[in-house]
Amino acid sequence: MLPNDRPLTIAEAADLIRDGKLSPVGLVEDCLRRIDALDGTYHAFIEVLREPALAAARAAEAEIAAGRWRGPMHGVPIGLKDIYETKGVRTTGHSRVAADYVPTEDATTTAMLEASGAINLGKLATWEFAIGGPSFDLPWPPAGNPWRHDHDPGGSSSGTGTAVATGMVLGGMGSDTGGSIRFPAALCGIAGIKPTYGRVSRAGVMPLSFSLDHAGPMAWTVEDCAIMMQALAGHDPRDPASAELPVPDYRAALTGDAKGLRVGVLRQFYETDAPADADCAAAFDAALAALADLGATVVELPALSPMQDYLAAAFLISRSEAFAIHEETLRASPGLYGEVARERMLMGALVTGADYVQAMRRRRELCVEFAAAMRGVDVVALPTLPTAAPKLGAYGKHFTIDRPLYTTPFNLTGSPALSVCDGFSAEGLPFGLQIVGHPFDEATVMRVGDAYEKATQWRGMRPEPLAMAAE
Amino acid sequence: MLPNDRPLTIAEAADLIRDGKLSPVGLVEDCLRRIDALDGTYHAFIEVLREPALAAARAAEAEIAAGRWRGPMHGVPIGLKDIYETKGVRTTGHSRVAADYVPTEDATTTAMLEASGAINLGKLATWEFAIGGPSFDLPWPPAGNPWRHDHDPGGSSSGTGTAVATGMVLGGMGSDTGGSIRFPAALCGIAGIKPTYGRVSRAGVMPLSFSLDHAGPMAWTVEDCAIMMQALAGHDPRDPASAELPVPDYRAALTGDAKGLRVGVLRQFYETDAPADADCAAAFDAALAALADLGATVVELPALSPMQDYLAAAFLISRSEAFAIHEETLRASPGLYGEVARERMLMGALVTGADYVQAMRRRRELCVEFAAAMRGVDVVALPTLPTAAPKLGAYGKHFTIDRPLYTTPFNLTGSPALSVCDGFSAEGLPFGLQIVGHPFDEATVMRVGDAYEKATQWRGMRPEPLAMAAE
Repeated sequence: MLPNDRPLTIAEAADLIRDGKLSPVGLVEDCLRRIDALDGTYHAFIEVLREPALAAARAAEAEIAAGRWRGPMHGVPIGLKDIYETKGVRTTGHSRVAADYVPTEDATTTAMLEASGAINLGKLATWEFAIGGPSFDLPWPPAGNPWRHDHDPGGSSSGTGTAVATGMVLGGMGSDTGGSIRFPAALCGIAGIKPTYGRVSRAGVMPLSFSLDHAGPMAWTVEDCAIMMQALAGHDPRDPASAELPVPDYRAALTGDAKGLRVGVLRQFYETDAPADADCAAAFDAALAALADLGATVVELPALSPMQDYLAAAFLISRSEAFAIHEETLRASPGLYGEVARERMLMGALVTGADYVQAMRRRRELCVEFAAAMRGVDVVALPTLPTAAPKLGAYGKHFTIDRPLYTTPFNLTGSPALSVCDGFSAEGLPFGLQIVGHPFDEATVMRVGDAYEKATQWRGMRPEPLAMAAE
Repeated sequence: MLPNDRPLTIAEAADLIRDGKLSPVGLVEDCLRRIDALDGTYHAFIEVLREPALAAARAAEAEIAAGRWRGPMHGVPIGLKDIYETKGVRTTGHSRVAADYVPTEDATTTAMLEASGAINLGKLATWEFAIGGPSFDLPWPPAGNPWRHDHDPGGSSSGTGTAVATGMVLGGMGSDTGGSIRFPAALCGIAGIKPTYGRVSRAGVMPLSFSLDHAGPMAWTVEDCAIMMQALAGHDPRDPASAELPVPDYRAALTGDAKGLRVGVLRQFYETDAPADADCAAAFDAALAALADLGATVVELPALSPMQDYLAAAFLISRSEAFAIHEETLRASPGLYGEVARERMLMGALVTGADYVQAMRRRRELCVEFAAAMRGVDVVALPTLPTAAPKLGAYGKHFTIDRPLYTTPFNLTGSPALSVCDGFSAEGLPFGLQIVGHPFDEATVMRVGDAYEKATQWRGMRPEPLAMAAE
């Protein structure tokens, strides 16, 4: 049974499950029904773990009935971008290269979600190894946008964006090296947070770029992201970049207002360096007004270096790091890769040690510059992307370098950064509002995003396909 | 006049100057007399700033007489390794490449020392750009060891080690990318500290390797290093790696004992991975016994990765970073470099971005491993070098990679690390005791070094040439 046509949020489902009013088995069955109805069109899943999920749901139901409710993730159906290793379950990276790879261990976050009681419904589409594009030369098709299936859901965590927005799962894991959680969050109209570098373990997540990769959750609401973050954050000795810092109560930080907060606006990126589309900019301006209504003081940030400097440094670093990881396989079996991933990785072969050093040196300067700019504010706001979703196949191979990416600077700085829906284009495709915070202050970032979301109408909107699935 | 045959320490001179019992002018004249008597043999100086130093000493004398004593560096003669930029004064890097380079600004630390009242007696010999060796194909000869002038004083801060040990200056600045403060401290029988990465600004110090370079002081005693550190430590927006952390009172931390401290011993490096000479190891064992007598608990550290892993990562990183800095000049005018520096830098041209990435990845793992090993101790002790000073010219070009360097791992980790004299070889050449601390805890490192030094006879020993200078 579906409780109603609108899929539940994690927060809603958790209350019902805790109170015995909703069975995890029923909830998993709802999700499986949506997958059956929709995924032939939307291609969010690489593999659906139907029987294991139902078995886990039955176990959760019994455990909760016996009075052992673990917390708000218990019995909640989720999905994992198919770069998260799953013990005994194929983890493909959406690539022919790893099509038969079955890990013997879980990623730390896979295990943490399981320990929280979440139920893994399956492995989700991505761009090949999180670096390719929405390509058609891979063993699985690219995921489609939940608002228009022939449009791009954004990548590389495309399957997670699509699965969450269509209600096939209530939450899921993405990864973000240049914007790959925030792009699909924006283009699918959901919430997604790239936590601070070091906050959430990346052990067992197929690496792309050691110094830029971030693991993080995507869900229908910011509140749901906060619930997932509570299950995910913390030190992991298996990830050498993992920080040993206390984890606050993220949900308790969601006050529903922005009183006393200073929101810095980074007009330079989206007005000067790489102007956003007019409707996207208008949605963002309206979001700023809403934040002011919620009690925030909106201030202009001082000028930074051109955004292109940030992108150039990130480009050299990410290509070089990706090549370092894949060098051996690229030399042995280049034909196993799709064209886009292969070309992007091979660019890294041209990067010399000296190039990389200079890029890292520039990166450090940019980090210092951005930290100084943030000194007087609590968060920084800017659009997530300059535009709504294009059609699949509408852009060439070089999406991630030809287009201005307002997200990538915060991979360089490692700042926590959230995307939340802030409106729709005339075609009915979503736009994203990006909120960036101080290191390890995900709490304030989510406080602002949650207050904004609850104060606006976007939170209630769900894409068309849900009607199909409910029929 | 010389107060006595033994040159004063900074601490001793400071008290006399403060009380009006010693004139900065007289003190500078003493140092100049030693320079005149000795530097033709020892080659510590590239340029002596005779008249400016005397003028500064007269100004200091007047200022102090007027009741404006600035603190313990006021009127104290020092020298700067010739990679520290000095406004209006040639800064050569001991290289033909920069033989005519006259900076228009001071290095931050140059200016900080001037603000403390220290008097710069001149620019000191180094290895070419801190990466060459003790070479004879440069415009200035290599510095000689103060205990035997035809032996190596250690590098790359060779001139600073020699000038301090011979009493030509009371303290000086070195820099340390793989051990270049600690080597000459050990081989000259003085004290030198590589502060934590980020603690002392490197702005205006000719860079060699951005991620491994450290600036720091060298002096006759640890107490003198603590006095210099007080003038040098702190945040500098001009150095992108500079940390924004409070600076403690270093001299107040010198309790004269090691009570309650746990000293970890890293036997693996100097017993297993790269055994030290028997007499060097015996000096170190005696030092450990002395630390126990001072109240420390000596404990064995758990096994780390082989020291060679640390050295290999540092080698790739430093060569690549050095090449990045010098690439343009190396391409335009390779002949201006000495052979050793040129060959070492050119190795960096062979390092790919992927190589560098893998080295940085390994570095991160090693940092995590070392931090875990240090968890139960306050400091780690090991020899600074495996041997006493060899003859100048006794080793080939590859000193810094063929020899086991117990110092370099702590450039990778960024840990504070001090070298202090812990005995002499049968030939009368000094050995060094290295003390390594937790990040930004220079205070405990110097507390241990100072207590050790005051409890042993080595502190009072000065090399032969002083007798020559006193004649």
